[in-house]
Amino acid sequence: MDIFKSTESEVRVYSRAFPVIFNRAKNAHLYTEDGKEYLDFLAGAGSLNYGHNNDTLKRALLEYIEADGVSQGLDLFTTAKHDFMEAYKTYILEPRGLDYKMQFTGPTGTNCVEAALKLARKVKGRTGIISFTNGFHGVTMGAVAATGNQHHRGGVGVPLSSVDFMFYDGYLGDDVDTLAIMDKVLSDNSSGIELPAAVIVEAVQGEGGLNAARSEWLKGLEQLCRKHDILLIVDDIQAGNGRTGEFFSFEFAGIKPDIVTVSKSLSGYGLPMALVLFKPELDVWDPGEHNGTFRGNNMAFITARAAIEHYWKDDAFANEVKAKSKVLGDALQAICDKYPGQFRLKGRGMMRGIEARNPDLTGPITRRAFEHGLIIETSGPNDEVIKCLMPLTTSEDDLKKGVSLLARSVDEILQEGVSEAS
Amino acid sequence: MDIFKSTESEVRVYSRAFPVIFNRAKNAHLYTEDGKEYLDFLAGAGSLNYGHNNDTLKRALLEYIEADGVSQGLDLFTTAKHDFMEAYKTYILEPRGLDYKMQFTGPTGTNCVEAALKLARKVKGRTGIISFTNGFHGVTMGAVAATGNQHHRGGVGVPLSSVDFMFYDGYLGDDVDTLAIMDKVLSDNSSGIELPAAVIVEAVQGEGGLNAARSEWLKGLEQLCRKHDILLIVDDIQAGNGRTGEFFSFEFAGIKPDIVTVSKSLSGYGLPMALVLFKPELDVWDPGEHNGTFRGNNMAFITARAAIEHYWKDDAFANEVKAKSKVLGDALQAICDKYPGQFRLKGRGMMRGIEARNPDLTGPITRRAFEHGLIIETSGPNDEVIKCLMPLTTSEDDLKKGVSLLARSVDEILQEGVSEAS
Amino acid sequence: MDIFKSTESEVRVYSRAFPVIFNRAKNAHLYTEDGKEYLDFLAGAGSLNYGHNNDTLKRALLEYIEADGVSQGLDLFTTAKHDFMEAYKTYILEPRGLDYKMQFTGPTGTNCVEAALKLARKVKGRTGIISFTNGFHGVTMGAVAATGNQHHRGGVGVPLSSVDFMFYDGYLGDDVDTLAIMDKVLSDNSSGIELPAAVIVEAVQGEGGLNAARSEWLKGLEQLCRKHDILLIVDDIQAGNGRTGEFFSFEFAGIKPDIVTVSKSLSGYGLPMALVLFKPELDVWDPGEHNGTFRGNNMAFITARAAIEHYWKDDAFANEVKAKSKVLGDALQAICDKYPGQFRLKGRGMMRGIEARNPDLTGPITRRAFEHGLIIETSGPNDEVIKCLMPLTTSEDDLKKGVSLLARSVDEILQEGVSEAS
Amino acid sequence: MDIFKSTESEVRVYSRAFPVIFNRAKNAHLYTEDGKEYLDFLAGAGSLNYGHNNDTLKRALLEYIEADGVSQGLDLFTTAKHDFMEAYKTYILEPRGLDYKMQFTGPTGTNCVEAALKLARKVKGRTGIISFTNGFHGVTMGAVAATGNQHHRGGVGVPLSSVDFMFYDGYLGDDVDTLAIMDKVLSDNSSGIELPAAVIVEAVQGEGGLNAARSEWLKGLEQLCRKHDILLIVDDIQAGNGRTGEFFSFEFAGIKPDIVTVSKSLSGYGLPMALVLFKPELDVWDPGEHNGTFRGNNMAFITARAAIEHYWKDDAFANEVKAKSKVLGDALQAICDKYPGQFRLKGRGMMRGIEARNPDLTGPITRRAFEHGLIIETSGPNDEVIKCLMPLTTSEDDLKKGVSLLARSVDEILQEGVSEAS
Repeated sequence: MDIFKSTESEVRVYSRAFPVIFNRAKNAHLYTEDGKEYLDFLAGAGSLNYGHNNDTLKRALLEYIEADGVSQGLDLFTTAKHDFMEAYKTYILEPRGLDYKMQFTGPTGTNCVEAALKLARKVKGRTGIISFTNGFHGVTMGAVAATGNQHHRGGVGVPLSSVDFMFYDGYLGDDVDTLAIMDKVLSDNSSGIELPAAVIVEAVQGEGGLNAARSEWLKGLEQLCRKHDILLIVDDIQAGNGRTGEFFSFEFAGIKPDIVTVSKSLSGYGLPMALVLFKPELDVWDPGEHNGTFRGNNMAFITARAAIEHYWKDDAFANEVKAKSKVLGDALQAICDKYPGQFRLKGRGMMRGIEARNPDLTGPITRRAFEHGLIIETSGPNDEVIKCLMPLTTSEDDLKKGVSLLARSVDEILQEGVSEAS
Repeated sequence: MDIFKSTESEVRVYSRAFPVIFNRAKNAHLYTEDGKEYLDFLAGAGSLNYGHNNDTLKRALLEYIEADGVSQGLDLFTTAKHDFMEAYKTYILEPRGLDYKMQFTGPTGTNCVEAALKLARKVKGRTGIISFTNGFHGVTMGAVAATGNQHHRGGVGVPLSSVDFMFYDGYLGDDVDTLAIMDKVLSDNSSGIELPAAVIVEAVQGEGGLNAARSEWLKGLEQLCRKHDILLIVDDIQAGNGRTGEFFSFEFAGIKPDIVTVSKSLSGYGLPMALVLFKPELDVWDPGEHNGTFRGNNMAFITARAAIEHYWKDDAFANEVKAKSKVLGDALQAICDKYPGQFRLKGRGMMRGIEARNPDLTGPITRRAFEHGLIIETSGPNDEVIKCLMPLTTSEDDLKKGVSLLARSVDEILQEGVSEAS
Repeated sequence: MDIFKSTESEVRVYSRAFPVIFNRAKNAHLYTEDGKEYLDFLAGAGSLNYGHNNDTLKRALLEYIEADGVSQGLDLFTTAKHDFMEAYKTYILEPRGLDYKMQFTGPTGTNCVEAALKLARKVKGRTGIISFTNGFHGVTMGAVAATGNQHHRGGVGVPLSSVDFMFYDGYLGDDVDTLAIMDKVLSDNSSGIELPAAVIVEAVQGEGGLNAARSEWLKGLEQLCRKHDILLIVDDIQAGNGRTGEFFSFEFAGIKPDIVTVSKSLSGYGLPMALVLFKPELDVWDPGEHNGTFRGNNMAFITARAAIEHYWKDDAFANEVKAKSKVLGDALQAICDKYPGQFRLKGRGMMRGIEARNPDLTGPITRRAFEHGLIIETSGPNDEVIKCLMPLTTSEDDLKKGVSLLARSVDEILQEGVSEAS
Repeated sequence: MDIFKSTESEVRVYSRAFPVIFNRAKNAHLYTEDGKEYLDFLAGAGSLNYGHNNDTLKRALLEYIEADGVSQGLDLFTTAKHDFMEAYKTYILEPRGLDYKMQFTGPTGTNCVEAALKLARKVKGRTGIISFTNGFHGVTMGAVAATGNQHHRGGVGVPLSSVDFMFYDGYLGDDVDTLAIMDKVLSDNSSGIELPAAVIVEAVQGEGGLNAARSEWLKGLEQLCRKHDILLIVDDIQAGNGRTGEFFSFEFAGIKPDIVTVSKSLSGYGLPMALVLFKPELDVWDPGEHNGTFRGNNMAFITARAAIEHYWKDDAFANEVKAKSKVLGDALQAICDKYPGQFRLKGRGMMRGIEARNPDLTGPITRRAFEHGLIIETSGPNDEVIKCLMPLTTSEDDLKKGVSLLARSVDEILQEGVSEAS
């Protein structure tokens, strides 16, 4: 481990919580060099919805590499890109009545957010963007301006501008209609909030603490955008690709965003890939106006297509995810019920967690879980939420096992009391 | 091709110049679905220095995938990362007397530039950055602010700030000392140019027209930075990884930048990967302050290590590149000599090209070259430079063949005259 | 009038509503070249609290000019400045328990706001400022960033930054505690609202529609600032100098702002003058860091001192203003009562008005009032408030006469109906 | 003096150099409370071109005040404004072939610069402005962004943006054509310098060290602006109103700026007043888009008109200024000649000074001059220039006397040597 300590930047973070060296992985399991097995409820921070080294995807990938398929193609036409686009259009967009253009950006979430914000500003000829409290959209300068977290904002070293923050669903309590407030400031030409080009929102806020917007709120937000001639961008980077039990996290609300950003589990194999979807009439880009060397990661196209064709040709997988979501939700609720007033269930689908009233508890609990063989992380402004992001392909046994390891860790920490916890 | 036309965004650019569908690639060759072979002098815009699907790297990659090595590891410790870091430190940094920390960022060039600029601002507690005329550093908001090109700047839709532009070596003619001007404005507290946190510079400007800074200029720039307590960032994304005949593009000048950004050919196989190197005393990051899901692209670690161990354990490869650089330079010079006053040799190492006095010629020439089986692109503010970025592993035969195809295209277009050209 | 039409910029605004040429003025009266008399309820937009050409002040001014007193003194020490400072300290600051330093800025309200914001940012080392919905603080770039009105913001031509807007008292309805919302976003490090250097607020929003903050709200705001280590700036430019019945508009709330901006009626004679008051420990200015040629308008010092010594040595004048405030408020309330649901009383002290439910009525009403000999203007985001800013020295007869002219205009317009009104 | 020490902000600056209390002034003389007389070569930093308390202007002012003329008129039509506009148009604009609209802004130089920059940005729909090294345009946020001096820029507390700095005439030495450099970066779409809305320039840089642009350079700048469709703004605040021997400082170059900012000596009596002049086709303001309470300082209109009618109906005064300029220039040159290599003549017209090779000398010299009864200040980035800005109405005797006091101070300080000087 010396090389990590001596040479890797202090910016590293996950290896602080899980200071072992991994060398192998399969579905919901990670293995260390010395053979220890861990259940992985972090799963690449939501980028491994189909598990580690999914065999179906692996087969397609190996075949492609063996055959010397184009690995890096910039934005040239390739067979791999062609086939991915066909599959995505046929099995994802068309069945959902979505008519979108596809833009492949540099293969990171933050990069596709940057592209989405640029495009919105260009289309509307306005500079402002509205983002929401606790929203997270990336850490490059355009995206981090729309990210609420001060830890990331402060790292930039220059003031961030041209983004106003509104209140997410429920932020001011269940009885406050945050959309009514937003409508008021947008309707008032003296509110100080200028008419933005777009709103950017997550249907479930992954980093912000698993806050899940209600269907009515998302519907209302879409209507508000239409009323004020504002584009609606849904950032589906973490909540998409099936995580909520539907392919897109916003389907349950029946809305059609103008722009959708997609990344993380898009390739399905942990290969970097990012995509911006937008209504055809918004495609005002000049050629090359937004570019990036790795926007054609063809290996990712291969696994992404394999994932779509394997999991999304029919409803079977989605139904399986919904069933597991219920198992997961019930099991987490049981923890909450055991300690009334101490924990609260958060999230939606297989993007769930428990929020501790006392944020000082979550660190000890996840550290204890790691000792018990479970990799699990926290989220939220004060790391107050223990977050489950296991592969959607996790077996029901592993799912239950993982949650029971979490429950055991909760029990132990609460029994040991605050003094040891801190 | 219908899906591309109907569904891919208008932002696509390379596929406009080369409108065929590629499905296979090997070293310096790309093959279309219908079996046509092209010599590739574009090579992933400099991201394929070791050629398409390099067999040495391919072997290591297949083995890793077969064994279910960790594919996506966030910034967890993994064997693949460990071994890459060891190899990079042992064979790249130490022999060059460079003591750097390594930060793995989201796997794109623009992302590591964003990290470098943030870090510099944090270290110095200043907001300004100095970049240079014709510099290109990426298109996310922080990086594009340091990019000269108006096409990319204008796409952002908000004014870009906190970057001042100075004159690159030779920009004002050979007789003007651009560093003296820079020294003057930095020494004058009433010049309007505030003391920046850092300077960011390319030793050879890849997108800006293959402008190559002289050794003395780079040395002088380093001294100027020391004099004014400014950090020196070398963006080695395109010019690094052996492209100039040395591993880093700045080695010939004997300078030691404070921060170096690396990407493109780093993984060697076209796999997205990016790295920021910086002096240990600059490592003031808080954990997770700059993050990104794909900052641990472990497959890229595997191929990157294989590339380093295969090509950089001794001088053989570097010497080979230097020899080819001479062949390339001579052949391009011959074109220039044939048409006195029409063309000028640009660049350094295997990052060379010819600048046309009349920028309207370069489009027709590269289009003709494509008809003859050569993929080659232009660069420079007016696309006035025809740029050779072939793999460093291109055989001498292919190298000569490609340049002769280019020469033939030049001959034909000049003979056909302007009217047909336009 | 030809020269105005042909040569004065289209930016002119008051002369559109009152298109006559004035040549003489006395207390609450303006006279045109052809001898027509108008009652002036606009009074230099609040810069003539002691009336036009107040005889006491006039005498002092004439004497000073006759004696060749220094007219323009930059920020040199002059007798006029000395005497003003003595009077202000003795009769204004000390009796109110306020220990403030005085900074004379360029003699405009917007200039002293710029100085206040700079100072706050310098003291706290933070860039952000919090302003409030419907706030107005001037139109130079630093001040207009803190001004809510889109008409003024849009005129700048670049995006405005580093100011976040919070909700003024009552903005979200009487039952919503806007300070609780502000506390929540400031306490949440993921809200997107960064900790600001200062809050800037008007105790009564003059341009924003005569919204008057409650005493408890101002007190709560002061506490919130203390809790989060934020400076409290009260912009007293329009509401100060006795307008509310006390010298400073915030006295009734018992708060002690860190910084106070003062201008408009400060000189008492319409002579440009501006002043920033701040707690001594905030005086971190370097010499000359904020400057301006006319920051020493010595004639204004003369009349300002005369006003203070004449009106503020004891409570008599303040009591008179309070008495007139009641007369004014009752008379305006009578209009509201006559048309239930149509009008609502706004403001505080002698800064009062009536808000029309239908904003289309206010233009016709004020135009009719002008025909009847009354100069009166509107304010608010939709010009929905008819605003009374008559001199505090207006005789009770004139006060009643003016309000009755307004009442008559209201009657006429409402009787004539909407069609004629528009 | 206690009140100044205890209560005036540390921002005060001139009173540090001249720590006496003035109470009376006439033409080129200032008098202290205890009767000491000083020759005033500072003259309100250029705002007293017609001397302190000029009798012609004084008479008109007293008469106006006595008659209860409107003192504060916002932007209402008044007789005083009417008569000023007539006089300005008839005696200033028309004889010079200038067809300009007039906008009265808040009565400070920085405020009219803010208005000019806004207007230019609105007209061109671009955000950028080009300013020049050592330029000074004010300290409110929009104006200070175009000001080179770091002392003033740094006071703002937020990064300044949307202004690029180019090299003033002679900045890079007499042999470098700074306009050619500017043309190159504006012609190069990859230079990083975006096409600006306007250029703002002083014909003589008052605060920047009395740098005087050559006629050819100003002409070339105008042509460059035309070529690139950029507006030309001349900031004539300090150099205008006759200071250079012509009414506008740019007349000698035969250029016609699109926009001119005027203030300082405009009122002639030290009364705050500011004016933006612009070509009629640029008058795209919406009513009230830029406003300010004191934009109608009617007393200033009165004295401004009197000054124009008295001094600018014919060439007599201009010729007198030109003659005095020669006397002044010769006398200052004599100082330079006496100490070869130590001093250099700077400036133009009656805006002249001597630049010391050793900037440490100027403080001691001006302090000594003050002891001898002469008020004179320094300018330039390092205060290296001793600057003469005496009233244009200074008698030739006083002019000679003042320069001889300066010469004597120079002699004394140079004889006393460096050690005492520091």
